[in-house]
Amino acid sequence: MAGSTYGTLFTITTWGESHGPALGVVIDGCPAGISLTDADIQKFLDRRKPGQSKFTTARKESDKVEILSGVFEGRTTGTSISLMVRNTDQRSHDYSKIMNCYRPGHADYTFDAKYGFRDYRGGGRTSGRETIGRVAGGAVASRILNHLGIHITTYTKAIGNISVPDSEYNYDAITDNSLYMPSNNYAEKASSYLKECMANKDSSGGIIECVIDGIPAGIGEPVFQKLDASLAKAIMSIGAVKGVEIGDGFQAAASTGSVNNDAFHSENGKIYKETNHSGGILGGLSDGSRIILRAAIKPTPSISQEQNTVNTDGENITIEITGRHDPVIVPRAVVVVESMAAVTLADLIMQNAVSRIDNLEKIYR
Amino acid sequence: MAGSTYGTLFTITTWGESHGPALGVVIDGCPAGISLTDADIQKFLDRRKPGQSKFTTARKESDKVEILSGVFEGRTTGTSISLMVRNTDQRSHDYSKIMNCYRPGHADYTFDAKYGFRDYRGGGRTSGRETIGRVAGGAVASRILNHLGIHITTYTKAIGNISVPDSEYNYDAITDNSLYMPSNNYAEKASSYLKECMANKDSSGGIIECVIDGIPAGIGEPVFQKLDASLAKAIMSIGAVKGVEIGDGFQAAASTGSVNNDAFHSENGKIYKETNHSGGILGGLSDGSRIILRAAIKPTPSISQEQNTVNTDGENITIEITGRHDPVIVPRAVVVVESMAAVTLADLIMQNAVSRIDNLEKIYR
Amino acid sequence: MAGSTYGTLFTITTWGESHGPALGVVIDGCPAGISLTDADIQKFLDRRKPGQSKFTTARKESDKVEILSGVFEGRTTGTSISLMVRNTDQRSHDYSKIMNCYRPGHADYTFDAKYGFRDYRGGGRTSGRETIGRVAGGAVASRILNHLGIHITTYTKAIGNISVPDSEYNYDAITDNSLYMPSNNYAEKASSYLKECMANKDSSGGIIECVIDGIPAGIGEPVFQKLDASLAKAIMSIGAVKGVEIGDGFQAAASTGSVNNDAFHSENGKIYKETNHSGGILGGLSDGSRIILRAAIKPTPSISQEQNTVNTDGENITIEITGRHDPVIVPRAVVVVESMAAVTLADLIMQNAVSRIDNLEKIYR
Amino acid sequence: MAGSTYGTLFTITTWGESHGPALGVVIDGCPAGISLTDADIQKFLDRRKPGQSKFTTARKESDKVEILSGVFEGRTTGTSISLMVRNTDQRSHDYSKIMNCYRPGHADYTFDAKYGFRDYRGGGRTSGRETIGRVAGGAVASRILNHLGIHITTYTKAIGNISVPDSEYNYDAITDNSLYMPSNNYAEKASSYLKECMANKDSSGGIIECVIDGIPAGIGEPVFQKLDASLAKAIMSIGAVKGVEIGDGFQAAASTGSVNNDAFHSENGKIYKETNHSGGILGGLSDGSRIILRAAIKPTPSISQEQNTVNTDGENITIEITGRHDPVIVPRAVVVVESMAAVTLADLIMQNAVSRIDNLEKIYR
Repeated sequence: MAGSTYGTLFTITTWGESHGPALGVVIDGCPAGISLTDADIQKFLDRRKPGQSKFTTARKESDKVEILSGVFEGRTTGTSISLMVRNTDQRSHDYSKIMNCYRPGHADYTFDAKYGFRDYRGGGRTSGRETIGRVAGGAVASRILNHLGIHITTYTKAIGNISVPDSEYNYDAITDNSLYMPSNNYAEKASSYLKECMANKDSSGGIIECVIDGIPAGIGEPVFQKLDASLAKAIMSIGAVKGVEIGDGFQAAASTGSVNNDAFHSENGKIYKETNHSGGILGGLSDGSRIILRAAIKPTPSISQEQNTVNTDGENITIEITGRHDPVIVPRAVVVVESMAAVTLADLIMQNAVSRIDNLEKIYR
Repeated sequence: MAGSTYGTLFTITTWGESHGPALGVVIDGCPAGISLTDADIQKFLDRRKPGQSKFTTARKESDKVEILSGVFEGRTTGTSISLMVRNTDQRSHDYSKIMNCYRPGHADYTFDAKYGFRDYRGGGRTSGRETIGRVAGGAVASRILNHLGIHITTYTKAIGNISVPDSEYNYDAITDNSLYMPSNNYAEKASSYLKECMANKDSSGGIIECVIDGIPAGIGEPVFQKLDASLAKAIMSIGAVKGVEIGDGFQAAASTGSVNNDAFHSENGKIYKETNHSGGILGGLSDGSRIILRAAIKPTPSISQEQNTVNTDGENITIEITGRHDPVIVPRAVVVVESMAAVTLADLIMQNAVSRIDNLEKIYR
Repeated sequence: MAGSTYGTLFTITTWGESHGPALGVVIDGCPAGISLTDADIQKFLDRRKPGQSKFTTARKESDKVEILSGVFEGRTTGTSISLMVRNTDQRSHDYSKIMNCYRPGHADYTFDAKYGFRDYRGGGRTSGRETIGRVAGGAVASRILNHLGIHITTYTKAIGNISVPDSEYNYDAITDNSLYMPSNNYAEKASSYLKECMANKDSSGGIIECVIDGIPAGIGEPVFQKLDASLAKAIMSIGAVKGVEIGDGFQAAASTGSVNNDAFHSENGKIYKETNHSGGILGGLSDGSRIILRAAIKPTPSISQEQNTVNTDGENITIEITGRHDPVIVPRAVVVVESMAAVTLADLIMQNAVSRIDNLEKIYR
Repeated sequence: MAGSTYGTLFTITTWGESHGPALGVVIDGCPAGISLTDADIQKFLDRRKPGQSKFTTARKESDKVEILSGVFEGRTTGTSISLMVRNTDQRSHDYSKIMNCYRPGHADYTFDAKYGFRDYRGGGRTSGRETIGRVAGGAVASRILNHLGIHITTYTKAIGNISVPDSEYNYDAITDNSLYMPSNNYAEKASSYLKECMANKDSSGGIIECVIDGIPAGIGEPVFQKLDASLAKAIMSIGAVKGVEIGDGFQAAASTGSVNNDAFHSENGKIYKETNHSGGILGGLSDGSRIILRAAIKPTPSISQEQNTVNTDGENITIEITGRHDPVIVPRAVVVVESMAAVTLADLIMQNAVSRIDNLEKIYR
């Protein structure tokens, strides 16, 4: 099945391998008339680029984007937008020794099981570089959201057991530290923990949180295209994500109705909720409050400790994975989570535009 | 957008309101030649039917299914299968007083925001009865899975804070207690807790766990149609679900690579994993191990305590929700989770069938 | 694949067999707030109902529609609309003798080839009764179009070689004669021809023309979702259609640019075309002129002449098909063509609503 | 809506403008394990390349394809295949004078109506160069078909009124003349006619015929994804196509059942049809005979005669379109028709692979 396309009205179709000539995305269904420049997209790509800190791979990639179609005189034309990033630092020789073995925690084995063989160079299509297309698509989706007054803030909530409590949140700090945490103090603690991990030839997981402000009530489509369901798919489709929750999430399971229900209140003709256990979504539709979602990211599977595994001949072997690997991918995944949320929202906001006959009359009569 | 259809090759399209004449589903893309009877479907519907225990609504519905198309002489024909369940005990007068107010934790407000008005009788399309179509669809999907040796087991892992530890699991107990817990002992504890909730005019949430055995490696489609992403959407689209996780899920975020990686091992020519932190999915594809997923269910929002809210005129009011409501929906949602997992798997197993040119040659040459 | 669903934003999912208990459609994505009654739908169904004239099957079916969901207090709610028509006059014994043979011109052989067996009663899913779901869906789509000032007129252009010249068109006559021709004079000629066909135990084909007025310029989506491409699929998916053309259609192939190009002209600030060879579509988008499309309908394959064919054991045999068959299906297919055009237009008009960021701003800001 | 993607399991997503930096396609869902080289694709692209004869534009483009992803060590990997062709001879100054006017027969007016503005350089996205992505996709689809023993032959049936009768067909001649006609004799006549057109500053339309051999019975999905319906959409989505027919097509409308029905015959255990009025499709499924389809192509709208039209300020003006234009696009469109047929077939053949539970058991058990 054509799993490389995501979305209904606003779609992204991504392509590219870690060590192929390039990676990219085709964005389709973007409304006409939005100003869009290389810089708008580059800003997003730079947030996932390697080499930003000591905790990211030393692979050198400028990840410079080229707009190949769909933009004319600085504005989107309504036709498909093709964006491409050339690979420049492939060093495929680094990977020759993993060619015949199944790295634990990686997709080597499952890709061979599915397709009979795989592009083993740097993980091929399963490399983290696959997210370049998502992020470039997210940059364009964000331009739509910005036009409508919607803003997304995404950050590292936790690395390993170092979790920033809500009470310590300072959003200004997010871009202050290379871990994208909303607290420089916790970022330092997490840094120490990561250094320890590296010393142990080990890696760490973490939690990314994403909040969305300015979204009107009613976004999402009943039953299967609910806003939360669509976000869950979008986020869970990112390589290392093992869990997704909205609002109180798994905590809600242990709660009671009297605590978990958010009372509505009206003031000056505006209806709002007094609390936000729901995370801004009720019955699968946005409820006008801030949307809150969290993604659980597993530890980077590439570690340089000796591990037991099997080779492609089915023999039991041990491997040590050396090379350029992030001890934690959470900071670089922050913009990927934001991008997938942006793409999902742009699509559902477009879908909701025709939910009432009044809206159609507003446009056509 | 047409949010009432789910799937690509195997699809379900559901319809119906709590107090309309009927509810149902159209299942399309079901392979021809599978034996299918009313009883196969009724068995699933009976697991979600009201009135099974003191913790479920007293509404009396036999939920008897009628097969309207797509089956001939006891076998699926390959064409669309229409299944219908008539509503019999609508009592719409019960709901007249909620017609003009927004119940906390419900979708009343968001539906009005989206569509301008709503079918307020029993929640209309947002009623739990909406899941009848999902479950009937899941029953058919399960027939496909059974043909291929795949089996799903689903149960209540936790109600409120009463969580069955893995070490206490006894799958034989699941159908022994009306809470569908894999331990009669914990089911009793949960029962006591629920009685307490009811005495307090309150309600409880919980966690449902679903395990899938017999699935070959390689199921799922790379990038956006990953097995875990697709399951996440399917499960999160169920009314009260606020979180989904696979394998170690949110625990993986606090783990390290050396612990979280599952070593591969080969024995007698078969490759398996020594542990299953991944929950049976690597790189979005099944890895041949048991698939494990969990869903967090929020507490039933309908409680008879007095709550603050707003009416449709925007005035601040208080309400007490009386009527027939489950103090916990977790037990009845067990089969809904299983059904959505079954539908998702059937679809992805069909999609994977054409992943290699060899497979096409096997069928066509 | 799930071929029983059609559309992207506005979808119809049809089901049902000629001799099953019922047939129907689930319409999803219909905007909320449109008044809709049984009568709106019945009006369409009555146009395809058997028994309207001596040229249609004598099967007696009232084809009475039941609205099962998606409408509340006389208005569409935005959720899925389920419509059902019960079969009442099945007489399956009529068909027992075709159970083991492949009728020429029918889908008996191809269904067996695809699925291994078939519901042989009255053609099962391939019966003309399958179009009930399409027509019910078209009735709902037409309600949307009417709200936007768009009107469709459909009629029999030709039966056999009896073709109404454009110069003789009188749209008032369409409902005056049982052949739905825009000329009573030609309808009489066609009637004589059909009587001759019946006397010869033969059947006739014909051409249906459909014109659409009031559609704004710009409807259709570039490249693969063009308005003409989408209409072509919609119309060609109707059982007996063997050709589709837009505007001058196949005549355009023999024309020259200087003749076929329609000059634009401006008057009082309005731009229009001086001619309409394009049939209202340029570059796959509506151009503001009347849309014109034609469908070629093959002769009814069920004829009572002796025909050579093969039985399911692969033996050469002869058959005579007796029973209740229309000598021409064109008149009853008129409303089916109109319905498929309506569904396609409703969908594309909804899609076009988000083609510009200005439109989104109009709705959301 | 995302109209730049076509297909369900095997999809193509195209992008690019006439005068942008490049054009291309992302092919998704291609089965793994098919050998694929640049040459396989170049062979197709060369058939639509400009400058092959005196009847095609003098624009010089080598249209050299670059494979950017999805192929490893000469074989498809199962992941998305990105193909790109750089524009080299853009000469955008040629088009500056059409920037403010609506060329008759072109999409200038409809694009402005839809999006508010357009990329006016060489027609932007509506240029014939848009078909590069289709043809590159068709080349890949053809590789799948070849593996399964399916072969497509496409040619110019008619140019203006010069139509090759079936009795004169010589398929060996197709690549012998620059018009791709199956008769050198008729190609010469057509040549003379085209010279006359050019002398008159005029252009010509024509008919393309496509025949498909080796396709098994049963391909196509009932109701809306019928083989003929899908082909109709695929072909009608090509820029200048105004009509599509299958088998006897519009002739069938004037025929009778006794003539139009194809008798089945059995010989040596094989069932075949004695005639092929159906064009190889019955009930929307392939019937095992040769598939025959025809597309009506309108005359090239760019002619150098003076034409009346309107400018973007709504003023009535006259224009003469000079520059590099084909007096007939039919010969270059031959490979585009073949490509769209190939993509459609590959997709439906993949979909049909799971039509029976037996097939799934063949693959999974």
